[in-house]
Amino acid sequence: MSPSDEIWSAVTPEASRRLLAAAVESFAELGYHGTSTRHIAAGAGMSAGALYVHYRTKADLLFRIALLVHESVLEALRGSVEGVPGHARRVRALMYAFARWHARHHRAARVIQNELGALEDEHARRIAALRRRVRALLHDEVQAGVAAGAFDVADVAGTSRALASLAIDVCRWYRPEGPSSPEEIGALTAHLAARILRCEDGAA
Amino acid sequence: MSPSDEIWSAVTPEASRRLLAAAVESFAELGYHGTSTRHIAAGAGMSAGALYVHYRTKADLLFRIALLVHESVLEALRGSVEGVPGHARRVRALMYAFARWHARHHRAARVIQNELGALEDEHARRIAALRRRVRALLHDEVQAGVAAGAFDVADVAGTSRALASLAIDVCRWYRPEGPSSPEEIGALTAHLAARILRCEDGAA
Repeated sequence: MSPSDEIWSAVTPEASRRLLAAAVESFAELGYHGTSTRHIAAGAGMSAGALYVHYRTKADLLFRIALLVHESVLEALRGSVEGVPGHARRVRALMYAFARWHARHHRAARVIQNELGALEDEHARRIAALRRRVRALLHDEVQAGVAAGAFDVADVAGTSRALASLAIDVCRWYRPEGPSSPEEIGALTAHLAARILRCEDGAA
Repeated sequence: MSPSDEIWSAVTPEASRRLLAAAVESFAELGYHGTSTRHIAAGAGMSAGALYVHYRTKADLLFRIALLVHESVLEALRGSVEGVPGHARRVRALMYAFARWHARHHRAARVIQNELGALEDEHARRIAALRRRVRALLHDEVQAGVAAGAFDVADVAGTSRALASLAIDVCRWYRPEGPSSPEEIGALTAHLAARILRCEDGAA
């Protein structure tokens, strides 16, 4: 099982789940526009006809993947700060979780980033709303820390954006066979974020 | 003229140049595998037959774009530190140039990042060599500053990678109609990099 299988572990029946994983592989290899539903179905060991029992169109598959991916990252971020006290500790927990998630789920994350432009309008609106919630989570944490005097930041919007880049870009370069584990990447990212916010010295 | 046209401004004849720009647009819209040479030729106001006078295959076009893009970023990085004294000033100049380049050329940069996997083997090897030179430029600057005691960094490889993420990820989210200019993004990125390296206080 690849780590990203967690993202769709609750999807039933099993054939629907298998098709999501096969679609990610096809989109990663050929791009959304270069992929046929026949190719996806074959990847899942099914006929093209059997695919349509579970998903009406290729666009539906892309949307379903985008939805599950964004719900997964939101859940990881929310869970990371739940009950954590102190601005510095909270933002470190958030950045650790954010970078670690992008290492673990690098393949699905890359596919979705590359193919956001291929989403149909109504789907794109729903995904954009989820993306705004991810950005707001980080932005609000930074804002709260600045307001409390725990962080030293002149440009909250630009700095939050940069913190997001540190975590999100992990999915572009991360390779499971590389020298660092997702946890090590998470820890380094949290450390560098604390430097950016000037809250390294255990200040809460 | 879009800023990225600079990347191929030296390509002649004009029809070859026009095809590169049209290919970037087609790849951005449909992905490499979803794009036909007919579609690219149409975007350049030419027939498919006329395209083959300039490029043998779609793969040649992708390689040519990747080559010019990587040479452009290398040139921007090298130029940024030429004759600049002091480790802190050099790394700031490098990060400014790196992030600014990715804002200005966000469209071509995204296409190439998304489609690196579509390069043919020999092409991929040549592009990988250029990418290693980009990474080495930043890594060696950080290393030199650490050796001289100008930067405070425990993990040179991981920190250099994170600095690269700050600059490269700009091409994922940058929109020309957004609130920040490429120069403002460059300045913020240089400032945050200095915080990461702990060399903000004018230390050389």
